[in-house]
Amino acid sequence: MHRYQSQRTQASFQLHGHPGISMRDSLQTYVNLEQSAPGDAYGSGAIINDFEHEIALELGKQQANFFPSGTMAQQVALRIACDNRAIARVAYHPLCHLQIHEQQGLKHLHRIDSVLLGEPNRLFSLQDLQSAEGVAAVLFELPQREIGGQLPAWDELQKMSDWCRQRGIHSHLDGARLFEILAYYKKTAAQVCALFDSVYISFYKGFGGVSGAILAADRGFMDSAKLWKRRHGGDIFQLYPYVVSAQYNYRLRRDKMPLYWKNALSLAEQLNQIPGISTVPKKPVSNMFHVYFTVDRGLLEASLIEVLQKYDLALLPGSRYDRDNREYFEFWAGDQFSAVDPEVVTQAICFLAAALKREDAI
Amino acid sequence: MHRYQSQRTQASFQLHGHPGISMRDSLQTYVNLEQSAPGDAYGSGAIINDFEHEIALELGKQQANFFPSGTMAQQVALRIACDNRAIARVAYHPLCHLQIHEQQGLKHLHRIDSVLLGEPNRLFSLQDLQSAEGVAAVLFELPQREIGGQLPAWDELQKMSDWCRQRGIHSHLDGARLFEILAYYKKTAAQVCALFDSVYISFYKGFGGVSGAILAADRGFMDSAKLWKRRHGGDIFQLYPYVVSAQYNYRLRRDKMPLYWKNALSLAEQLNQIPGISTVPKKPVSNMFHVYFTVDRGLLEASLIEVLQKYDLALLPGSRYDRDNREYFEFWAGDQFSAVDPEVVTQAICFLAAALKREDAI
Repeated sequence: MHRYQSQRTQASFQLHGHPGISMRDSLQTYVNLEQSAPGDAYGSGAIINDFEHEIALELGKQQANFFPSGTMAQQVALRIACDNRAIARVAYHPLCHLQIHEQQGLKHLHRIDSVLLGEPNRLFSLQDLQSAEGVAAVLFELPQREIGGQLPAWDELQKMSDWCRQRGIHSHLDGARLFEILAYYKKTAAQVCALFDSVYISFYKGFGGVSGAILAADRGFMDSAKLWKRRHGGDIFQLYPYVVSAQYNYRLRRDKMPLYWKNALSLAEQLNQIPGISTVPKKPVSNMFHVYFTVDRGLLEASLIEVLQKYDLALLPGSRYDRDNREYFEFWAGDQFSAVDPEVVTQAICFLAAALKREDAI
Repeated sequence: MHRYQSQRTQASFQLHGHPGISMRDSLQTYVNLEQSAPGDAYGSGAIINDFEHEIALELGKQQANFFPSGTMAQQVALRIACDNRAIARVAYHPLCHLQIHEQQGLKHLHRIDSVLLGEPNRLFSLQDLQSAEGVAAVLFELPQREIGGQLPAWDELQKMSDWCRQRGIHSHLDGARLFEILAYYKKTAAQVCALFDSVYISFYKGFGGVSGAILAADRGFMDSAKLWKRRHGGDIFQLYPYVVSAQYNYRLRRDKMPLYWKNALSLAEQLNQIPGISTVPKKPVSNMFHVYFTVDRGLLEASLIEVLQKYDLALLPGSRYDRDNREYFEFWAGDQFSAVDPEVVTQAICFLAAALKREDAI
């Protein structure tokens, strides 16, 4: 859908994501925070340590440590779990970030093997955990991003956590989008994190920060994590541009997460009323979902462009392809959604539905 | 020297380093660059790619890639050299950054063994390279920071580079302070880098940027380096705060490096005239040198504090201890030096010399 992709960003209104922001505007925001302190140095300094403390408290963990990336934070967490048990094997979902986006860093850097739990197109279950017997750690991704941000029922999650603990298996949470799911579970971050021995959260996804992540766990685990951060080359001279941005956007958007979810629910409900269009999950459990279609691809593209032109509105982001080569849209609701009149959304979706019924499909 | 250490930063004039800068002032500088573009994304975007191209040209290498840290850049370079030769062994100076500051990341992450060349307190020589027969790579650090920033003679350096190439051994340059040595060698960066198959340079040392590094080599090597950067967790969502700062400070200070060297030479010459004080090297070959002393430690501290009080000037930075537990000062000349009247420096050093002669030593 190249035509739609190239035109959609020119629409005045977007439903997907947060507004784009220039480097200058982004940096200007952080200047205005009046950070007159001298910055951090190799992970020390009030700017970084105060924020780590704030997040540790929020997650209910003894210590939190700021990492430049989630890729690094998660490899480090799994390595420590493996070293502690002298087992170089971990288990996770087949579409886990480590499996599909990290060039097999866990294997090539840490020589850790992976057990894939269940099937790619669904969540893994308590039963699937049987194949994880004898691993050092299980990684849980909440929500499971590559399948539209699905979540296990809270009861099932508790049982899976218990299963790991009974076996001395480390449970790690890929909580890149942790704050996006708290409204659905009706839990605090600390209540969710209590099920896991370590947790990673991201500051550039739902929060919209520049970059950066936090890894949190108990003190001994985090002492090891700092060593491994240095070994990875992540103990960077100054992290403050990331930290300032992370803290600012975390505080700005933490309490907006329930609104983002509500907006995602509303859009998904309306899209699912169009024959040939369906969302995964049917009812979103976070601010994200995927949009699949069985209608003609060319007709859908032309219709989305008509909506663009008529309403100055991009209903969906650019499309991508899943592992089965099926085209889909990955939608997540952020600040842009709130700037659009809900009545216009409804009209645009009605228009889209009508356009998709036309006989004269392209 | 805790008393001196705590008081020295309050002096209006400092000879060591660049001025400290608050987070706000630093960020404000980058805002003023009018970066109205949207930033980078996972290593793509004009802001990062243009700078990489600028540095690649400067270093005379086919490709350059921005890394969050030198620790990561150098491990990656050595790993690729080892993989290409199916040899997991590299050689470097006993006080190489990888050996003493990186928690043995090369060993624990990459399972690469190290051969230490020569003795800690001197440069390694062509003769020392004999023990590197059969390694995949030799790392050259120019200047050798932990021994005061020493440099081999250009002829010797050429011979060592030839030695490596004749044996198919990868030669890597730790050029964290590469631009600081060009005036001494009377060479361009590209002429120095031509002796090496890969090179890393830092942007937060002499250049005074926020953080960040560049690794440069030929195209095939750098294609592998990008893969390894992702595996290390260094392929960060947005690197622009580092890149903007690196480019700004690189352009600001590149041509000041000869001045920094001249200032370091002048200070070292004057310090060496004081009995009981000597610099390593005797004549600096870059903007840095180390200061050792045989005079009474308490007397030296009291005298430096007297200079502080009388001239509002900190002649030296805080002290540290070397591997033999000998106390020393690591001095490097940057922008602060130029703000001090040379006549005042001369007077202060005369005063220091006189103070150190007192019989009533503390």
